[in-house]
Amino acid sequence: MSITERAAAARSAQRALGGADGATRTRALERLAELLEERTDALLAANRRDLEAADAEGLDAPLRKRLGLGADKLRTLIAGVRALAATSDPVGATQRATELDDGLILTQVSSPLGVLLIIFESRPDAVVQIGSLALRSGNAVLLKGGREAAHSNAALVACLRDALGDAGLDPDAVVGVAGRAEVAELLALDHLIDLVIPRGSGALVRHIQESTRIPVLGHAEGICHLVIDAAADPAMAARLAVDGVCDYPAACNATETILVHESFLPQFQAVRDALLAQDVRIVEPSSEPDWRTEYGDLVVNVRVVGSVDEAIDHVHRYGSGHTESIVTEDAAVAERFLRLVDSASVFHNASTRFADGYRYGLGAEVGIATGRIHARGPVGVDGLLTTRWLLRGTGQVASEYSQGIRSFTWRSVT
Amino acid sequence: MSITERAAAARSAQRALGGADGATRTRALERLAELLEERTDALLAANRRDLEAADAEGLDAPLRKRLGLGADKLRTLIAGVRALAATSDPVGATQRATELDDGLILTQVSSPLGVLLIIFESRPDAVVQIGSLALRSGNAVLLKGGREAAHSNAALVACLRDALGDAGLDPDAVVGVAGRAEVAELLALDHLIDLVIPRGSGALVRHIQESTRIPVLGHAEGICHLVIDAAADPAMAARLAVDGVCDYPAACNATETILVHESFLPQFQAVRDALLAQDVRIVEPSSEPDWRTEYGDLVVNVRVVGSVDEAIDHVHRYGSGHTESIVTEDAAVAERFLRLVDSASVFHNASTRFADGYRYGLGAEVGIATGRIHARGPVGVDGLLTTRWLLRGTGQVASEYSQGIRSFTWRSVT
Repeated sequence: MSITERAAAARSAQRALGGADGATRTRALERLAELLEERTDALLAANRRDLEAADAEGLDAPLRKRLGLGADKLRTLIAGVRALAATSDPVGATQRATELDDGLILTQVSSPLGVLLIIFESRPDAVVQIGSLALRSGNAVLLKGGREAAHSNAALVACLRDALGDAGLDPDAVVGVAGRAEVAELLALDHLIDLVIPRGSGALVRHIQESTRIPVLGHAEGICHLVIDAAADPAMAARLAVDGVCDYPAACNATETILVHESFLPQFQAVRDALLAQDVRIVEPSSEPDWRTEYGDLVVNVRVVGSVDEAIDHVHRYGSGHTESIVTEDAAVAERFLRLVDSASVFHNASTRFADGYRYGLGAEVGIATGRIHARGPVGVDGLLTTRWLLRGTGQVASEYSQGIRSFTWRSVT
Repeated sequence: MSITERAAAARSAQRALGGADGATRTRALERLAELLEERTDALLAANRRDLEAADAEGLDAPLRKRLGLGADKLRTLIAGVRALAATSDPVGATQRATELDDGLILTQVSSPLGVLLIIFESRPDAVVQIGSLALRSGNAVLLKGGREAAHSNAALVACLRDALGDAGLDPDAVVGVAGRAEVAELLALDHLIDLVIPRGSGALVRHIQESTRIPVLGHAEGICHLVIDAAADPAMAARLAVDGVCDYPAACNATETILVHESFLPQFQAVRDALLAQDVRIVEPSSEPDWRTEYGDLVVNVRVVGSVDEAIDHVHRYGSGHTESIVTEDAAVAERFLRLVDSASVFHNASTRFADGYRYGLGAEVGIATGRIHARGPVGVDGLLTTRWLLRGTGQVASEYSQGIRSFTWRSVT
C-alpha cells in the first residue's frame, strides 16, 4: 500500500477507534502494556541493532543517549501506559449542556481530532508516549521517527498495532512512516490528516509549516527570558538563572536571555559569578538577531532594563511566546508581569525549565505549542481533542422560533 | 498610516486591552451602547447614504435588505451590547489549577487570542456584534466590511473606537479596513495577526485560506444532510425536511441532501409532496460533484440508502462536516448516529437550521467553524480565547526534581 492509501486506511480506522466505547480503548492500552512486557527482549534487541548502527556511523553522544532504550526506560514507559489506561476516557465527555427548549437538549462533547502526523527525532520512547496518548484520545496516528531508530520504532509500532487488533480495533489506526518522500506525500493530504506535530528543532518546525496547508502544532523557537527585578532575592536570582541556563541547555524551555533591572546591578555580580562557575558564556548583544537566537548551549544574553515594563516590551519584541519568568519579592510587580506578558507560560520565582507537560502534571506531552490557536504551551491529551455539538430534539423546526411561535429557554443543565 | 502600521498599532493596543481589568472592558461596552444611542440619527443617516448608493447601483433585494440598518435593528444591537456588558469578563478566568509542590501553584487562565482580522459582507450590524465580542474577549479587531456598507461601517467603527477611548483604552484596538489591496497586505502579516475569520461564501473562505499563512477560522461549505431512518415519524420527517430546505436556503445550515432509508420509501411520498408544495426542486444526482454542491436555493438532493451506516458513510464521504440530522423514533439508531458522525453539529429529530450561535445560546456568533482545530461549530466568545499557563513559585528549580531531591504533588486545587 502506498503511504497515501495507508493514510486513507488510518482515517477510516480512526472513525471506528473514535466511535468505540472508552472501555475498548482502555483494553487496547492495557494490552499495549502487556505486549511491551512480553516482547521486552525483542524490543531491547531491536534497539541494540539501532545502537550498533549508530556506533558504526559515529553518532554523537547526546543523540546516542536519546536513542538508547534500556530495560529501565521500558519499565517506565510501561508504567506510563498503565497510568494512562487508568485515567477516565476523555472521548464523549460533556463540556457543556443546555436545554434550548422543552425536549431540545444541546450538549458539547469532547471528540478526537482525527488523524495526526507526528514527526519526531531519534528518541524511540516517543512512539509509545505519543501512540498511547493518541489511543486514549481516539485519534489515529502516523508516526515518523528518526532513521537512526528504525528498528526500535518498527518494533514499537508493531506493539501498538497488535494491541489495537487484540482489543478488536482496526490496527490501521497506527501507521509507521519511513523516509522523507513519504512525509512529503503526507504533507499534501490535507483532506486526510488533521494536524501535524513536529517535535524537533525550530528549523524543522518552520520547514514543516512552510510545506503544508495542514495545521501545525509546535514551537518555532524557545527564546525564554528570565527577568530579574529590582526587588529580586539575589540568591534566588542566581539559582533560577543557573537552573534555567544550565540544567538542559538544548531544551526549548532553557533560559536564553536575562533582563536585569538597573537597580539590581550592584547585586548582579553574584548571579554572573554563579553562571561563570558553570562555564556559561555571557553575551551582551548589540544587534537584534542575537536577541532572537536560541543558543541551545551554555550561553546567555544579558541586558539591563530601566523597568519591568521595558523588560515586558523586550519580551514581546524579541521573544517567541514560549516561557518567561520574573524573580521578585514584590507581589504587585509579579502580578503585573503575570497579567501583561503574552506568552504560553509566564512564571514568578520559578525556573523557565518547569514549562513541560510532565512537570505540569499533564502526563506525557505530545509537544509544546507557541501558537495561540488550539492548544498553547505543553500539550497533553486535551490538546488532541476537539468538540462536537449534539442536539437531541423531538421534531423541532427553526422557523417556529424565528416566527415567535416558540422561544428558547437556554437553561444550563450541567 | 499604512494598514501595516495600523495593524502594528492594533497589536500594541491589544496588549493594553487584554491586560486591562475586566471592569474597564465592561465600561467600554457600556459606553459603546450609550454612543450607539446618542448617535442613532447620524448612524441611520450614514446607512441611508449606503442604501441610496445601493439603489442607484441596482443592488438586488436580499443584499439591500441585509444592508439596511433601521431604528429597530439598532435597538436590538444596543440591547445585545448591554447583554454582553452584563456577562462576566472571560479574560483571566481560571480553567485549571494544580499545586505542583508546596509553594508552586500552576493555573491555566483564559487569554485573548490577540489580533483578529474579520472579513464580512454587506451587513453592517456585524461591525457591532463582532466588535463587541472582540472587546469582551480582549482582542483587537481589524474589520473589513463590504464596500456597499462603507458609510455605515465607518460610523459604527468610530463608535467602537470612541468607546475604547472614553473608557481609557487605546482606540487603535479597532481598525476599519477598506479595499482589497489592504486585505491582501494584511494577509501577509502573520507576525501581527493571529486569526482570520472570513464570513461569507465558501469561495471567499477558500480564497482566504489559499492566500495566507495566518490560521483561518471558517466553514468552507455547508453540505448538511438529513437522514430519514426506517423508524422515522413521517410527519416529523416532512416538517424537518421542509424547515431544513426552505426556511433560509442561502444559509450554510440549510439541508442540501436527504438520505432516505429504503424501508421508509413507501412513506417518503408525503415528504416529497411537502417539499414540492414549497416549490423545492428534488434532484437525484448520479455524479459525485452534485453530492458536494451547496445549492443555496430551493433544491435538494435525495438518495436512497440501505442502512444508517450507509448514510453515515455518505456523510463522511461527501459532507463538509458542518451539520447532519437523523429523524428516527429508534433511540439506539439515534445514539449510534450521534456517536459515529464526525461533524461539528450532529442532531436527532431537529432541523439542521438549529446550527447557529444565537440558537445554541452563545449570544452573538463570529462564525461557524468546520475545521477541527481550535473552535468547532458556532463560535462565540469562547472561540476568541486561548489560555496561558501561570506558575507562581518560591524559588524552585527544575534540577532538584529531576535529581529526586524534591518531588511533585500534582494536587488539583480547583
